[in-house]
Amino acid sequence: MKSIKHMWPATVVVLGLLSPALASIWPIPSVYVNGTTNTVVASAQITAPSISSSILSAAIRRYNTIIEYESFTPPTDYNRRPPDPEGSLTGLTVSVDSNDETLSLETDESYTLDIPTTGMAKLKANSIYGAMRGLETYSQLLVANGGYRFVKSTPIHIEDKPVLKHRGLLLDTARNYYPIGDIMRTLDAMSFNKMNVFHWHIVDAQSWPVESKTFPDLQNKGAYGANMRYSYKDVQEIIDYAQVRGIRVIPEFDMPGHTYSVGLSKPSIMSCLNKQPSWDNFAAEPPSGQLNIAKPAASEFAVSIVSEYVRLFPDSVFHLGGDEVNRNCWEQDPDVKLYLEANPEESVETLLVDFYDKVHNAVANLNRVGMTWEETLFHSNYTPPKNTIIQAWIDEESIPKTVAKGYRSIASPASAYYLDCGHGGWLTNVDGGSWCDPFKTWMHIYNFDPMANITSAKQRKLVIGAEVALWSEQSDATVLDARLWPRAAAMAETSWSGKTDAIGHVRTTKEVTQRLHNQRFRMVGRGIMAEPLQPLWCARNPGSCFAP
Amino acid sequence: MKSIKHMWPATVVVLGLLSPALASIWPIPSVYVNGTTNTVVASAQITAPSISSSILSAAIRRYNTIIEYESFTPPTDYNRRPPDPEGSLTGLTVSVDSNDETLSLETDESYTLDIPTTGMAKLKANSIYGAMRGLETYSQLLVANGGYRFVKSTPIHIEDKPVLKHRGLLLDTARNYYPIGDIMRTLDAMSFNKMNVFHWHIVDAQSWPVESKTFPDLQNKGAYGANMRYSYKDVQEIIDYAQVRGIRVIPEFDMPGHTYSVGLSKPSIMSCLNKQPSWDNFAAEPPSGQLNIAKPAASEFAVSIVSEYVRLFPDSVFHLGGDEVNRNCWEQDPDVKLYLEANPEESVETLLVDFYDKVHNAVANLNRVGMTWEETLFHSNYTPPKNTIIQAWIDEESIPKTVAKGYRSIASPASAYYLDCGHGGWLTNVDGGSWCDPFKTWMHIYNFDPMANITSAKQRKLVIGAEVALWSEQSDATVLDARLWPRAAAMAETSWSGKTDAIGHVRTTKEVTQRLHNQRFRMVGRGIMAEPLQPLWCARNPGSCFAP
Repeated sequence: MKSIKHMWPATVVVLGLLSPALASIWPIPSVYVNGTTNTVVASAQITAPSISSSILSAAIRRYNTIIEYESFTPPTDYNRRPPDPEGSLTGLTVSVDSNDETLSLETDESYTLDIPTTGMAKLKANSIYGAMRGLETYSQLLVANGGYRFVKSTPIHIEDKPVLKHRGLLLDTARNYYPIGDIMRTLDAMSFNKMNVFHWHIVDAQSWPVESKTFPDLQNKGAYGANMRYSYKDVQEIIDYAQVRGIRVIPEFDMPGHTYSVGLSKPSIMSCLNKQPSWDNFAAEPPSGQLNIAKPAASEFAVSIVSEYVRLFPDSVFHLGGDEVNRNCWEQDPDVKLYLEANPEESVETLLVDFYDKVHNAVANLNRVGMTWEETLFHSNYTPPKNTIIQAWIDEESIPKTVAKGYRSIASPASAYYLDCGHGGWLTNVDGGSWCDPFKTWMHIYNFDPMANITSAKQRKLVIGAEVALWSEQSDATVLDARLWPRAAAMAETSWSGKTDAIGHVRTTKEVTQRLHNQRFRMVGRGIMAEPLQPLWCARNPGSCFAP
Repeated sequence: MKSIKHMWPATVVVLGLLSPALASIWPIPSVYVNGTTNTVVASAQITAPSISSSILSAAIRRYNTIIEYESFTPPTDYNRRPPDPEGSLTGLTVSVDSNDETLSLETDESYTLDIPTTGMAKLKANSIYGAMRGLETYSQLLVANGGYRFVKSTPIHIEDKPVLKHRGLLLDTARNYYPIGDIMRTLDAMSFNKMNVFHWHIVDAQSWPVESKTFPDLQNKGAYGANMRYSYKDVQEIIDYAQVRGIRVIPEFDMPGHTYSVGLSKPSIMSCLNKQPSWDNFAAEPPSGQLNIAKPAASEFAVSIVSEYVRLFPDSVFHLGGDEVNRNCWEQDPDVKLYLEANPEESVETLLVDFYDKVHNAVANLNRVGMTWEETLFHSNYTPPKNTIIQAWIDEESIPKTVAKGYRSIASPASAYYLDCGHGGWLTNVDGGSWCDPFKTWMHIYNFDPMANITSAKQRKLVIGAEVALWSEQSDATVLDARLWPRAAAMAETSWSGKTDAIGHVRTTKEVTQRLHNQRFRMVGRGIMAEPLQPLWCARNPGSCFAP
């Protein structure tokens, strides 16, 4: 790509007032140039004469529907007279260099969008997924006003691509269940924010909602109920629904901890199943239970799980969990004790390393890349394969520590990106906060920098992504949208657009508030019950609700 | 009423295991006695042969509909075999001593409910509103299980009445707007929890959504939009909808502060209208603006507002606001300065006393009781009429201070009862908390005692009520249900049932968790999107999710 500075030297937007069009785009594009014409929409119809990809065709149909029904007026345009139309948009043509439908960490999501003062707009991308990102931007540029639709500030030239390759959202569907319709709506909302990874924390101690062909009783005994299950068909529908939105689905089968629900059908391979009332000696939360790492049948089970579900989930990355293992659970286990008496050269630590090694090898043997929580790297003696993706959550400093060791890092620090925090303790005999209070405001999320304290260019490249997480101790479908949105959108922008603009200025929440209001109201219009940021008065009066 | 101890000495429930029937009642009745029979529901039909009140008739129709469609199974009964039916319920008859439809602070809400092992249940009450409370209890006793409906643990005898007369919920419909359907759903939810006051904080600085016949431009210029208004007809519908649920509607017209929206049509009677960017010198939050207390037209306006709206709102209590007045706003006002130069014996303080006096007199002259925030009593030199109801919010200690002065108190301390808190700052250029963090968990709400530090029986009687509040800086219709419920239900129980049981034991959150889970799931079944308290696993396994 040619340097944009040479092409559009005088008009590159770097700071200052938002043009009306730019105000309606979230996340903000990397290169954005605009004029001052108000183009009325004669037709917004999207066509793609030479596209053969059925996935991109489905995306175009979806955006044609969104465009047909959407009538988004920015709050600042309330009661404002529509501008005089000075040009006429007649539609958008889409072209791509390749119709390849492979979706992976390496997928090229760049696109170029040109909207003239009059005539057809043009969207070009290398991949079909880049084209999808451009379709979202295009849809956001169409604003309604006084019965007309406009693209304001034309001509517009956008060149855009993400800063981070993995822009994810974790949903825990095990502590509480979410119907697939809610997951699909969440995927819609992710696509509105150019997010591209659905990290499906699908099972945990409390329930095992997903079908297993290998061990049917995992679901039969482990799901919360007949109406709280994910069949193979459901999972396939979710994966397909995600793919036509350019979203990868990474499943997590958390082992060896967080597995009480396995014990409902396989008690013989478990340790410390539901110890009460002192569960805190055995687990981070009730019910306790871990795979019994002294038993070969337990690691064989774990390998079987990997083998089964890599067939169901096509993504190249498979998440193995590995977090919050409790040593005491095993130290108190009679079978572990017997084993260690018979094998005094071993220990709980060597057994754990052996377990991790078996499941990570299984992933590698099945041509997948392993992903795991940071404890596997930092809190055990195990050395994961060098291509393992390490997800940081305990400490923001785990991100620089991970890349310093040469591993790829996904930033999910609880201190910034845990969207469930801030609702106080959930053990109902306490009257106080939780370990991860306070609530993470969108400003706090926006201000977090996954690259903080990493100076080496090589190490910065190893920070491949960021993920917000919704753990479900205090969430279920009744509160899903408001827990996620618009706060997840804050991370969506910093992970797509980066923390800084073209001249290195770190964007402030003050500067982006108006755009985020627009994005929030647009999402509500599209059926996502995103929570309000402020009184409507503030959204209509940009700059009037700042702390002096 | 005879001492229940003499009537049912051996079986009064005081502590320990919940009977299956008691587990499904929220708030807990003052006297509850049960047997061990499982009565199957042949008919649950409610009839009231001798009732002439159309309001009670409407309530009976409503509960017959709820009962017809509801199929609530407690989470603990999941997959449990239905009990063997040992008796048969054939319906409920309702009788009342009076068909008087007056609804006020003094309304008698007591009722007696008897459900035999076999035959007709009987509900008796002194007033139609007491009968409504009993209808709710009756509906909660019907639980579904395996295709049958039961009343468990019959025979049941309940004698019930509230500890506090005013059990309220404040909704701020000015910072953000709520459609009347959302308000009606909130009134439904309140009735499910025996709450009886909807405190309608209907106008504020940000908008004036309600119609005014006296000053039509208040709404025309002050409402957020044509689709964000409350007409007289809307208000009347809300009042009627509330009354058939036994809920009073107390309107609040907050003056002289929080009135920027008045300035949109009446700038001549205002001071410090929307000072920017240093609004913090003039108001608690933007936009600033107060009635200009140096101008007779301002207090005349305030008196006109009282005169108009006492006609629209029939309740005997009228809330005048009076909170968070900013002296600097007036000290800097040119007209106030001129007035005080001409009248050196006066001051901002005397002007404020004079203003308060005029509006409180207007209320009294219209045969209403004034209600006001605690600043009127504690932060000004004004002495309100002795029958004024003082609402505490700044400090929990304001409650004992209020009753020590001989005034009646409503407890709404922000530290316990502000349901909007805990979502961090909302001025979007800050990355931190808000003054009223943290989030108030249901446990914290439940543990708060409005009577704390008040020992004199006479003074305890002056604590007439409690109110949770949802201020709307960060709330609107998208998040309403989850912000309110089930946390408001925690206050609903402590204000109806009191803090202690019959033998003076202070109920703990540990003891009531199972009942609150039931109430939350029942509410979700009735269409209230109440947030979950815990993983479903915890709700199904009482006692397994406590902190050791």
